[in-house]
Amino acid sequence: MTAVIPAGVETARDLVGPALAAAVETFSPDVRKVAAYHLGLAGPEGALPGAAGGARPGGAPGARGRPPGAGKALRPALTLLSARAANAAPERGVPAAVAVELVHNFSLLHDDIMDGDTERRHRPTAWTVYGTGAAILAGDAMLALAQDVLLEDATPQGVWAARALSAAVQRLIAGQGADLAFEQRDDVSLTECLTMAGDKTAALMSCACSIGSIHVGAPPQLAMGLAAFGAHAGLAFQLTDDLLGIWGAPEVTGKPVRSDLRARKKSLPVVAALSAGTAEARELAALLAREEPLSEDELLLAAELVEAAGGKTWTENEAGTQLAAAHKCLADTDIPGDVRAEFAGIAEFITARQW
Amino acid sequence: MTAVIPAGVETARDLVGPALAAAVETFSPDVRKVAAYHLGLAGPEGALPGAAGGARPGGAPGARGRPPGAGKALRPALTLLSARAANAAPERGVPAAVAVELVHNFSLLHDDIMDGDTERRHRPTAWTVYGTGAAILAGDAMLALAQDVLLEDATPQGVWAARALSAAVQRLIAGQGADLAFEQRDDVSLTECLTMAGDKTAALMSCACSIGSIHVGAPPQLAMGLAAFGAHAGLAFQLTDDLLGIWGAPEVTGKPVRSDLRARKKSLPVVAALSAGTAEARELAALLAREEPLSEDELLLAAELVEAAGGKTWTENEAGTQLAAAHKCLADTDIPGDVRAEFAGIAEFITARQW
Repeated sequence: MTAVIPAGVETARDLVGPALAAAVETFSPDVRKVAAYHLGLAGPEGALPGAAGGARPGGAPGARGRPPGAGKALRPALTLLSARAANAAPERGVPAAVAVELVHNFSLLHDDIMDGDTERRHRPTAWTVYGTGAAILAGDAMLALAQDVLLEDATPQGVWAARALSAAVQRLIAGQGADLAFEQRDDVSLTECLTMAGDKTAALMSCACSIGSIHVGAPPQLAMGLAAFGAHAGLAFQLTDDLLGIWGAPEVTGKPVRSDLRARKKSLPVVAALSAGTAEARELAALLAREEPLSEDELLLAAELVEAAGGKTWTENEAGTQLAAAHKCLADTDIPGDVRAEFAGIAEFITARQW
Repeated sequence: MTAVIPAGVETARDLVGPALAAAVETFSPDVRKVAAYHLGLAGPEGALPGAAGGARPGGAPGARGRPPGAGKALRPALTLLSARAANAAPERGVPAAVAVELVHNFSLLHDDIMDGDTERRHRPTAWTVYGTGAAILAGDAMLALAQDVLLEDATPQGVWAARALSAAVQRLIAGQGADLAFEQRDDVSLTECLTMAGDKTAALMSCACSIGSIHVGAPPQLAMGLAAFGAHAGLAFQLTDDLLGIWGAPEVTGKPVRSDLRARKKSLPVVAALSAGTAEARELAALLAREEPLSEDELLLAAELVEAAGGKTWTENEAGTQLAAAHKCLADTDIPGDVRAEFAGIAEFITARQW
């Protein structure tokens, strides 16, 4: 299945990118440098990374084999659509889109430290370039700014939007906390793992899909319908992400091959495989329980065992189920037809993507 | 000079402690455990640390030779006073006090990681007990919750208070960023160092002194007067803290002896000494420029050189100047006399403290 970038993603990048760049400009120089690098707005020394695309948050230098930064404009696109769903101009969704992007990037900055990830978006992660302390601080600054961007509008809607974002942030943190805790356990259930993914990924996606409408004063029923759509689409996104974390091509994903197995992540395909109760599941469990790092051959074997134990098929099926549920939520929500079609297009794109 | 804990500090602990504990209860179990430990609400395994004082945020186990947790209730006391300054009952300052405490503790959790500090409040720091990732997350959760606590009140005052807190958080982050950057430099000026301290410490103290009044709808003039008082008192606090970081008794401060010199911190006494242009200043600069860790004897020598180059005297004098400026701001602000007296008492206590 080929994945065509929905038109709304490009539009969102053009509308939200400059506002995000302006928001980051408010940081102190030491903090701004790290944030700008992480967002692909600047190279390690603060210079823009090349003339073409450099001014765009998506324009990461050295991107190879995929549309530059398409992934990063997904949430903004959803948030602008969310404003349009409530019959507002997409421009009115920009503050909420900036806030969601700031939260998303705060979590990437901090997660990369916690997970020890050294590469993201085809570049060295911020903590490897500037040190752990500077990367923690840049994430902190983004998190704090996200709330403030929404509160520039001191109306009740501004407060509702800020609180919706807060709730998503707390779930995101709970999910990452569970993810970290899972690494120390060998008895994680598929239910726990789905809850974790719902918190870690789907909560912010759900927020991205609804906060634009909340911020322009949509009726609760509409916002809740969009939030439900986003929750299902977000789970489909994470299921796809977990498949790519094992079987994705590193030159496309921008992460090392089989990176999730390398880090012994209790990702959904792995936990589904471990729960299968087959000989392959037991062999996989024994392999992942080993103290020492796994060799490249062992990582390949682990990937084969996940597949043989049914972890890949389960994950693909569950992604399909979540995608179908997302479409059902869309159909049940009273929004303009063109907006519904664009939401649906992004949901399809999310699960068909290769990165 | 003996430092008597102002009565308001005890009252604040009783009013704000339970609200802070309740706020932390909203975190997911993995995150809550770390936050509760950091706040002294629980031991490493989640149990309360002993019957006496265990339910209080200040009741850290193993505290020796100082009033348990007195330091931690300073900001809440200032915030409750700030509400009273605007003729509101102290209880109405509780949400703002909780928000300020959450921000303060977020910054302690993250700073301990960045600075590699292994002991705080006479206990191992959270990152040494639970790991860096879990400590980063607990800090993140506190930062996000701080804003949300204020927005439970969806009035314009709630938004103003949240934005005042955001501004303080951004300055706090800028200050910590500068502090980290200073460690890589040997040409930090005293002006830069004072700006850093103003951002890192005084901004949140200034917020603590004014946010209670903002949250209850005080006139801007009053809030600005209290903010100015807090900015000066906060600088006096940091100057005192820097003196204790070199000459404080470890059994009282809860930190290793001469910890700031050990970490080669560009603290105010050190930078003042380095700026003196004397033979002692040059000897100190040479000592601090050494690659290898300093021995205990060398740390003692460094402390003596800071004093001989005038760094101790300068810092003591500057603390006195800031304290006087704080008193002047108080005198110029139209608040009830008993509130003014309590603010003044806390400012005196801050600079006379031994911890």
